[in-house]
Formats: sequence, C-alpha cells, structure tokens
Amino acid sequence: MLQHFFNPSSVAVVGASQNPAKIGHDILNNIVRYGYGGAVYPINPRAQEILGHKAYPDLATVPSKIDLAVVAVPAPAVMDVLEQCGKNGVDSVIVITAGFKETGPEGARLEERLATQAREFGIRILGPNCLGVIDTASALNASFAAGMPLGGHIGFFSQSGAMCVAILDWALGENVGFSRFVSLGNKMDISETEIMLSMGQDENTRVILGYLESIEDGPRFMKAAHHVSKTKPIIIIKSGTTSAGAKAASSHTGALAGSEHAYRAAFKQSGIIHAESMQALFGYAIAFANQSLPEGPSLAIITNSGGPGILAADASDRSSLHLTPIRKETADRLREFLPPTASLYNPIDIIGDASHERYEKTLKVILKDQLIHAVLILLTPTAAVDAESVAREIAGLAKDADKPIVTAFMGEKRVRGARKIFQDHAIPTYDYPEDAVAALNAMLRYRQWLEKPEKQYRRFEANTGKVRKVFASVIKQHRHDLIESEARQILKAYGFRLPENRIARTTREAVATASEIGYPVVMKIASPDVLHKSDMGGVRVGLENEAMVEDAFFEITSNIQLRQPRARILGVMVQEMIQRGREVILGITRDIQFGPMIMFGLGGIYVEVLKDVAFRIAPLSVEEADAMIRDIRSFPLLRGVRGEAPADIEGILDGLLRLSQMAIDFPEIIEADINPLLVCPEGQGAVAVDARITIHE
Amino acid sequence: MLQHFFNPSSVAVVGASQNPAKIGHDILNNIVRYGYGGAVYPINPRAQEILGHKAYPDLATVPSKIDLAVVAVPAPAVMDVLEQCGKNGVDSVIVITAGFKETGPEGARLEERLATQAREFGIRILGPNCLGVIDTASALNASFAAGMPLGGHIGFFSQSGAMCVAILDWALGENVGFSRFVSLGNKMDISETEIMLSMGQDENTRVILGYLESIEDGPRFMKAAHHVSKTKPIIIIKSGTTSAGAKAASSHTGALAGSEHAYRAAFKQSGIIHAESMQALFGYAIAFANQSLPEGPSLAIITNSGGPGILAADASDRSSLHLTPIRKETADRLREFLPPTASLYNPIDIIGDASHERYEKTLKVILKDQLIHAVLILLTPTAAVDAESVAREIAGLAKDADKPIVTAFMGEKRVRGARKIFQDHAIPTYDYPEDAVAALNAMLRYRQWLEKPEKQYRRFEANTGKVRKVFASVIKQHRHDLIESEARQILKAYGFRLPENRIARTTREAVATASEIGYPVVMKIASPDVLHKSDMGGVRVGLENEAMVEDAFFEITSNIQLRQPRARILGVMVQEMIQRGREVILGITRDIQFGPMIMFGLGGIYVEVLKDVAFRIAPLSVEEADAMIRDIRSFPLLRGVRGEAPADIEGILDGLLRLSQMAIDFPEIIEADINPLLVCPEGQGAVAVDARITIHE
Repeated sequence: MLQHFFNPSSVAVVGASQNPAKIGHDILNNIVRYGYGGAVYPINPRAQEILGHKAYPDLATVPSKIDLAVVAVPAPAVMDVLEQCGKNGVDSVIVITAGFKETGPEGARLEERLATQAREFGIRILGPNCLGVIDTASALNASFAAGMPLGGHIGFFSQSGAMCVAILDWALGENVGFSRFVSLGNKMDISETEIMLSMGQDENTRVILGYLESIEDGPRFMKAAHHVSKTKPIIIIKSGTTSAGAKAASSHTGALAGSEHAYRAAFKQSGIIHAESMQALFGYAIAFANQSLPEGPSLAIITNSGGPGILAADASDRSSLHLTPIRKETADRLREFLPPTASLYNPIDIIGDASHERYEKTLKVILKDQLIHAVLILLTPTAAVDAESVAREIAGLAKDADKPIVTAFMGEKRVRGARKIFQDHAIPTYDYPEDAVAALNAMLRYRQWLEKPEKQYRRFEANTGKVRKVFASVIKQHRHDLIESEARQILKAYGFRLPENRIARTTREAVATASEIGYPVVMKIASPDVLHKSDMGGVRVGLENEAMVEDAFFEITSNIQLRQPRARILGVMVQEMIQRGREVILGITRDIQFGPMIMFGLGGIYVEVLKDVAFRIAPLSVEEADAMIRDIRSFPLLRGVRGEAPADIEGILDGLLRLSQMAIDFPEIIEADINPLLVCPEGQGAVAVDARITIHE
Repeated sequence: MLQHFFNPSSVAVVGASQNPAKIGHDILNNIVRYGYGGAVYPINPRAQEILGHKAYPDLATVPSKIDLAVVAVPAPAVMDVLEQCGKNGVDSVIVITAGFKETGPEGARLEERLATQAREFGIRILGPNCLGVIDTASALNASFAAGMPLGGHIGFFSQSGAMCVAILDWALGENVGFSRFVSLGNKMDISETEIMLSMGQDENTRVILGYLESIEDGPRFMKAAHHVSKTKPIIIIKSGTTSAGAKAASSHTGALAGSEHAYRAAFKQSGIIHAESMQALFGYAIAFANQSLPEGPSLAIITNSGGPGILAADASDRSSLHLTPIRKETADRLREFLPPTASLYNPIDIIGDASHERYEKTLKVILKDQLIHAVLILLTPTAAVDAESVAREIAGLAKDADKPIVTAFMGEKRVRGARKIFQDHAIPTYDYPEDAVAALNAMLRYRQWLEKPEKQYRRFEANTGKVRKVFASVIKQHRHDLIESEARQILKAYGFRLPENRIARTTREAVATASEIGYPVVMKIASPDVLHKSDMGGVRVGLENEAMVEDAFFEITSNIQLRQPRARILGVMVQEMIQRGREVILGITRDIQFGPMIMFGLGGIYVEVLKDVAFRIAPLSVEEADAMIRDIRSFPLLRGVRGEAPADIEGILDGLLRLSQMAIDFPEIIEADINPLLVCPEGQGAVAVDARITIHE
C-alpha cells in the first residue's frame, strides 16, 4: 500500500536546487546522502547536475519510469507539475510546497483544483504543505528534515511538520530507532487513515505513533484503527481537545477539532492508545517498540531504596497493574542471598548497599517466577552501586526474558551512563518511577484489548419505511423537530416499548381516553411548537380520577395559551403512567468528525448537574453498550442500593442498541433523546416515556 | 533555629575513619573537601590524624567547644556517644547510624532510650538512620552523600535518604543550585516541622522542597506550614497515599501513612503546593527558585510552530491560567515585524522560518504588555532557527523582566545546547510544553494563596459542661456510642437547631406527644443498641394521625424485638417532621496524623454511591467551611436547579463551624455525623434531624 511513497525504485525531485538555502536542495541532499539505492532525478530547467546527479529540465525528459515525485516548486507552479506527472505516468507525489488551504480561502480553492486534477490523473498525493517522508528500511529521506533517524520499529505520522522535526530531533538525541516518518501536511488526498493502514502492513513497523489535530473521516479512521490495532499498537496524541486548544488548532490549519467526548470514545472503541501528553507518547513508544506485552497484571518492583519504591507502588495502585505479594518459593530463593533487612514484600527492597550482583541475582529469580508478568527496576545511585554495571546486567538478562522489563534510575549525573546503556540495548528507561509504571500500564491495557473477543452486533427488525414516511412529512411541513406523536412512531418502528397514549382534543375525550387506558395517567400538551413541555406548565402527572383529568386539561391548555400564545395546539396527550422504574436518558448527538454518537446517563440531575454521562460512537457493539452503562459513576444506583431491586440493565442495553441502529440507519437524525427511559426492575424491560428527535433535510 | 546543624563553628565526627570503605570516612571527607571553614575534629581512639586533621580519642579530649557532632558509630555505641556529648556540652547531634526503629521492636526500644537520654541532656538530634545535612552557604557537607550541590536557593528535606541521593545527583547533573539538604531519617527528635521552620528563617532558602512518607504532628505541621508558606513556597511530594503505597511505606520505615483525604486537605489549608509526581516536584522547584510569581492568570505563548502551541493551549485551558487574546496595541506592534502568515492570536505563532531575532523582538513586545502576566516560549528546531541563539536572547531579556518566563524547546539533539544555556541562566526549561504550563500554574495558585485574607474563625457559645457530663455518663456505662437523646443533648449544647421530640414508653404516651408536637411526626426506636435504625425497621415517617402513630409504635417495637432481641428498648422517639429541605451530611472523623477532620456531602447516594464528599482538617475557618461546601460536584443542587429555591448555604456553614469547634473541644469524639442536616430554603437555617456520635475514653 502506497509502496511508491516508501520504497520507490526512482525518485524525481521537482524544484531541486543547487542553492543550499532552498528546500529543493535540502530534499535532494537528504535523498542522496543517506544511502537511498534507487535512481534519483533532480528536475531543474536551469541546471546540468545537482549534488552529483544529472539534472533534467522536466519530467518528460527523464529517460526511465519515475515511481515518486517530490515537489518543491512555488504554489502557483504545482498545478503544472501535477499535469506533467500525470502525462508521464507518475502515480505518487509528495507536495512539500505550502500556500494552500492553510493560508485561507484562496489557497483552499487552489487546493481543491489540485485535488480534482490528481483524481483525474489517478495520482496519489501526500501534502501539500508537508515535510515529506522518511523510510529507514529503504534508506529514503524524501524530506527537508535535518537528519536521518536510526533504523527501528516505530512508525510516526503527524499532522504537524513541527512535531516531525521535534520527534526526529528527540530520536537522534536519544538514539531511538524509527521505521518511518510521515508528515501529513494538509491531508488533501492521503489521510492519517491510509498511512495507518500502510504502516499496519509494513513489516518494519511494530508500533504506530501519531500526532493529530483533526480526523478526516471518523468512521473510516475507526474501522482502520480497529483493524490495525489488532496486530500493532497505535499510540496517538490528539491536540486541540480543549476550547483554547481547538481555537489554536483552527487558527493553525483551519481544521475543526471535534468534541473531546467523541475522540475519547472513538479511541477507546478502536483500540487506540491515547497518549495524554508528549511525554506519555515518547514513554509508551519506547516500551511498546522494545518489550513484549505483559501476559497479566502482576508487577514486581525491584529497588535499592524505599522512597522510589513507594512512589512506584502508589503509581501502580492507581493503574490496572497489581503489586501482588511475592510467593513463598520465590521469596525463599531471594532469601538465600539477600541480607535479612531486605524487604521481600513487593516492592522488593534489596537495600542501599546492593551492588550490581545483587540486582542481577534478584532479577534472575524474579524472571523465573511465572506468576509475575512485568518487572520494574528502580535504582538510586548510592555509594555501593555502580549504575552502569547494573544496567549491563539488566541488558544481558532482558535479552532472553519472557516478560517486559522497564527501568527508572533516579538522578542524573551518576545514572547518565546507565541510561545510555539502556538506550543502546533497547531497554525502556524513564527519569521517574511514575512514567515507567504508566508505560507498563499502557502495555497491559493494550494486551487486554487484544484479548477482547470480536465485537458482537445485534440487528433488530425495524420498520424503516414508516420512519422514512414520518421524516418526509416533517420536512414537508418545514419542521425539524418531531412532535411527540411522531417521535413515538419512530420509537415504535424500532421496537421500543412505549406507554399507551392517545391525543384528546376536548376535556370529554380526555376523560374517556383516561378511563380506557386506566388510572393513573399523565397528561401533556401535544404541540409541534412546545419543546420544553414541563417548563411551560404543559405536563401533569399522577392524575387519579375524572376530576383531576378535567382540571389538568384546562390547566395545560391555558398555560400554553398564556405562555406561548403562538404555539399550535393539537390537543392534550393522555398517557399511561408507568409507576415503578428508574429514569435514564439515552441520546444521539452527531460529531462533525465521527458522526452519530450515543449518550447514556441517569435522568435529571445526574446528567444535567453532575455531568455523569457516557458516550460511544455508533454503531455500538453489545459489549460497548454494556461498557457505557457501567462507565457512569452512578451505575451502582442501577444495580440497586439500600435494598432496592436492581434495574433491568438488559432493558437499557437493548434500548442503546436499538438507538444506535436508528442513528446509523438515518443520518438525518441530528439529535435525539429518550428522556426518560423508565427502567423497570430486573427482567421487566424498559419503557420509553418521552422522546425528542430533530432531523435535517 | 537549629543553627548548629547548618552553620556550626566546629564539627566533631564521631566514628571518623581512615578506611575509605567506611561511612565515617566519607563524612569527614565531605566536611573537609568542600571548604567548610570551621574547626573539624575527627573522633577515633585508634588514629592520630585523619585526612590531615588531628584525631581525638573521644569528645572529652577535644580542646575547644563543639557545636555539632556527627555520629557514625555502630548502633549499640550511640548511647555512650550521646552521654559524652551531654557531658561535653554538645547540643546538636546528627545520628547517621542505622539500626533503630526501622529494624523492628528491639530497634524501636533502643531509639526510645536514645530519645529519653537526649531530652535529659537537652540535646537536639537529627536522625537516626539518616544521610546527614548539607548547607551550601556555610560550605558544610556533613553527610555521606556523593557530591556537593552548587549554591542556590532551594532547600530540600526528605524522609528518605535515597531521595536525597537522587535529588542531589539530579542537581549535580542539571546544575541546579541548593541552599540546604536535610535527611530526616527516623525523625526521633527533629521533625519535618522544625526543618521547615528553620528553612523559613534561612535567608538563603527561597523555596522549600520536601519528600514525606508520614507526618509526626499534623496540627503543628499545618500551623508551621501555614506560617512559612506566607513568605516562601513549600512544595511537597507525599508518597504512600494509595493502599499499595502505604503498605510499602510502612514496611519501609514503620511509618503510618494516614489518609489521602487528610493530606490533601491539610496541604490545601496550609498553603503547601502538592507535587503529584517527582517530575512535578523538580519542575515546580526550578520555576519557583528562579522566576517571580505571575501577578495574574494571563499567559502568552510564543511559538515557532503550531502543534506544540496547541498542546500548550490545551494544557493552559485545563489549568487556572488564561490564554487571553493579545490586545490590539500589542498586536499592532508585533505586526510591524512579523510576517503576514504569523498568528497574532494567542499562542503567538511566529512561524517556522523565525530566527532568533524574531524571537527576541516578539518577546520584547510581549514583556512590555502589562496585561500579560506570564510568558511561555516554545521552540521547534527548524532549519531556520539556532536554538542556542534564541536561548541567549531569552536569557538576556529575562534578567530585567517583571513577569515569569519559562521555556520548552522540543526535541533533544539540536536543543541540548539551548537547555544548557537556560540552566546556566536560571531560566526554567522543560522537555514538554505541558510541564511548563503546570509549573506556571503552580506559581499562579501560590500567588492566589498569598493574596488570601487572613483566616477568620467564628467562636460559638457552647455548654461544654453539659457535654462533659453526657460523655462521662456514657463512658461510665461502658458504652462508646451515644444514643439519640444523648446525641441531641450534645448538638443542643453546641447550638444546633433540632426537631422537637420526646421519648414515649407506651402507645398512649406516643399519641399524646404527637398531638403536642403537631402532626405529621416521625417515630424512631430509642435504644442504645440499635445503630442502623432504618435497616432494622425502627423508623416510620410521615405519620399523620393518631391511628398511624399507634400502628407505628407497635410495628417499631415488634420489629426490633424480632430482629435484634437483645437490644435494650428505652421507648420510641416521637419527633417533629421537618417537611421542606435538602438533606446534607456533616461529619467528624479522626485522622491518625492530622486529628479531627470535618466531612461534608449531600445526603444518601451522593456520599454513599457517588463519593461526592469534601474534607477539611479542623478547626475550620469561615472561608474553608465555605470552600468545602462549594467543593462537591453536586453543589449546584444546593443553589437550586429547575426553579427550586436555593438552600440555606449559611445554615450549612454555621453547622460545619459548630461541628469543627466541637471536634476541637472534645478530642474524645472519634466519629460523629449529623445525617441528615435538613437545610431549609435560603434564610431559614438548617435542622439537625439525626446524629450519631462515638467517643473513646
């Protein structure tokens, strides 16, 4: 996939320059100097030869086939170059040139024309406005970055060229190997999704790292990430997640950041490891690239001092890892050589006078214990210990270890050498114990993701024809909000259980209907114009007899006439009153990048005041629907507290899945909520009492 | 304060050794080699001279006065040395020797004897089981640490010797200057509180840093911290805050960690800056030590690339800082020299081709804008920029700046030199933008602490004699739990408003009492043995008439006789039923380190299920009580949602302050809660409906 971008047989640099101040020079120089083995064609009408390679006036004059063209001519000339590419059979082009969408409306129009042209010629384009591409396996540095990383197993893609620069510089400084660097630029054609898929197929890439400010096609991105993450970890940092950050991002690339809820849900559902900071991104990358995944949560900590061990224990307690006590057999083996003051609890404190031999012996014993799944080794540079010797011992043992080993040597001056040894031997090392624990925890979580069974979806019978008809009639009436009776029809079409109800146009009808349905009843205004019925005095509940129904009819209609005189009143809805159940809210909202998102929370103040809400992107799998129910802090209330009967979780699950199917079937639903869904005691299902649905044309 | 520990005229090293493998050699060597100017007396009966200093067989033979003795003899010999110290007028002793409390019960007994002896002689002791003391101003390194930090303004104390070693090594590696290092060891005599106070008085110390696993005397510690933090920032990392961490800590030093709630409250109330990780501790330290505090929350970010700017904006949005738009005058001034593609929004993106001149000009303009309170400068090592030149420009301008400047240069290889320049010029620099923002935020929060008005306390009339009498009677009956009528007397003594009530022994009495109080009433079992009255069927509410009261009396008494046949039944309490109000819970718990802690939350599921609770250490100031009410997530419910009347916040405040006073007046209260306190609508106060109080002898 996209092979010509990463492993081309020949590369043309359009705009190659003899002038070292020009980007066209840097690119050619990078291609030439790092040992790329294919043919290289500088394109420049005013040069004979550049950097030892014969130059050609244009692509047409190049004698052989060109797999990849790297374009660094001014923006107005890019269009021509693309045409040349098309005519000369170049199917892969990196447009380095800036001056497109990122500069404003005019640039955006130019970019659109470029995109159309590219599609016509069947040319794939990376960029424009990007730094280029590096592939260490093919020794290709088709970028204007300063330097070439060591070969390795981390693939990195970035929406920000600066992040490529920064990460490359970090890689060079810390000797971290990379398989690929890809600067996405404006993502006019090739997006993060395709790069992710191509890295998924690249055998040199074991870990995929990404920096994103926006996502082009949320559902496609999620599908690709889900697929790739089942074989390789994907670690992404997403910026612009706060409102200040989103403002900064949109002034930067004109990209819309989308909602934080949606990102978090999408990452969770597609197995992406979310790095909350640059530090986490780096920290996770070196762990995933160099160590096997832990087979379970049990962590052993080896330390030569108490303090750092306690900090690591605190961090571990806040993670999914377990600091389980060392079992007797292992403790006995340790006791053979550890001093009596050593602590054989976990953290294992081999105390301050430990030498590298004691570290080595301890680690050997711990590595043999199959109940331990991961090892963290801490060191404080005491007088007794030579940190570099310890590092060498660890490096020696880690080679054949069947569990991940990470390290955190405290300090700076006396542990610098040891850190270098760890870098050289691909042992993840961190400045602080907390970061080491965080990396192991990310690995454990990823392991748990891999072990999850395949997602199961439920498909319900739905009367989509009916829904289409209702929506068409609403649109025909130039409305967007469905009235209650319409919303009921939609829910019915998707198999929701509803309270019995009918519209009454007169007091008399209301009384008759109530006695048919059976007391007590609820009454609500039926009007396409009244959205917040309760607030307007348009709802009365617990009506137990004829007289109360008569009063309610009068009150409701006069309240609405008084408070919203222009509202069209279709009558008053008389409804069965469901008396036992817990109120929950199910909803659909639409994210600009990920499409329909399903919302769940308990009714009333739980959502409104306590913001205790869970989100997932539709379609929901059964497991995802179940997880989102359990995600909210108030979940124990559904299981029942103080002797209450547990609510019917299966009923909520069923509702979430039906709503999810509806959201996918009908993209015209912008917003919907079932509020409340009344959840009966276990085994008795749930009833959709009220609903609001908003559609667009 | 403790002057002889930090600036002695003479030091004796008891156990000084010629053997470089001995700690007694390291200590003497450290004292001698780093330029300490006072007299040095090695004490060793088997040596004539050590490291060029005449050795003495014992303290008595030293010809002049000894200000400080550093003891590194085996544990069994320490007692004798202490006696010598006493007899020879040495009033300050550092006991390096290990083998005391940390080794178990026998060591603990030895330590107790040592403490008694020290008190008798009036000797102050640091340790035992410590690394020693460093004071850079007096060039005294009375420790066995490997190295001497540069002089500077950070004072560090630590309960873990390893943390001293690690931080010293970090200081040496990063050229961070320190005023003092103090290893607390077992804190037999001198505790963190005294060290904090002494650093508060030390003119060379501007920032106090601490690592703690436990706290000796919580209230004293808080008082001292509150006092010192009003002039110098105190930054503390507390380990052992999780259960795994606490286990590790107690196996390490035998120290009890105390509850995390108590720590967080204590730190907040006494102005301590809580570092959540080692990284935060370091990051905050270099910012506080070298930069002025921001005068307000307005942050400007200068960057040469979008991505890092967005990450910084995200971090800022999650903090107390504001990323306010740059005002027109300043933007105009920037526009004079910035390219048109630069973004004058905030972050100010001076774009990828920015040189050091552009950085300098931009920073100059920003520093002049008095609406900006802090500056963060980001740099990505693009081809156009020389990071070191930028660093030098910043260092030049920072000297005279009236606002804090921090930096984060992205990458490693090409920014290493710039980081070194920042270190040399005391400009805080961070590997990642997020950490830079966190440090500025900590400074802002500290500034806000300084600006807080002095704490105001309210003192209420209380009938303490009555309380004492009730408690005495309870203890006399060998009980610890007060029955309801007793608890009511206590609350009454502290001026709480209570619902009217009386115990009825017969159905007849109950009916008479109910009609006196007025319907509706509540009835509850009155028994010293039934603690969970509701669960036992011992409560009936909403009793509207004689018949209901009769039934209730029968039901309640038979329920209890059935379910808890051994319970002594004093009768049934008939109580006024308060009908309008919001249920909240106020409580007292006792933390082993900080003493009485006041708890607040909304009633029922808010505390029990949602864990939405606030804690503060007693005594509460008015402002603290108010803050804890507003701390809970469900606070908006008290202000009233959906048109409800706001609850009487002043009534809650009053209750919290009364409870706080009670907790301080009566340390024998182990646990108490008022559940519920029924809070009436604004202006109408609150009623303590039910209470439980547990005391010890």
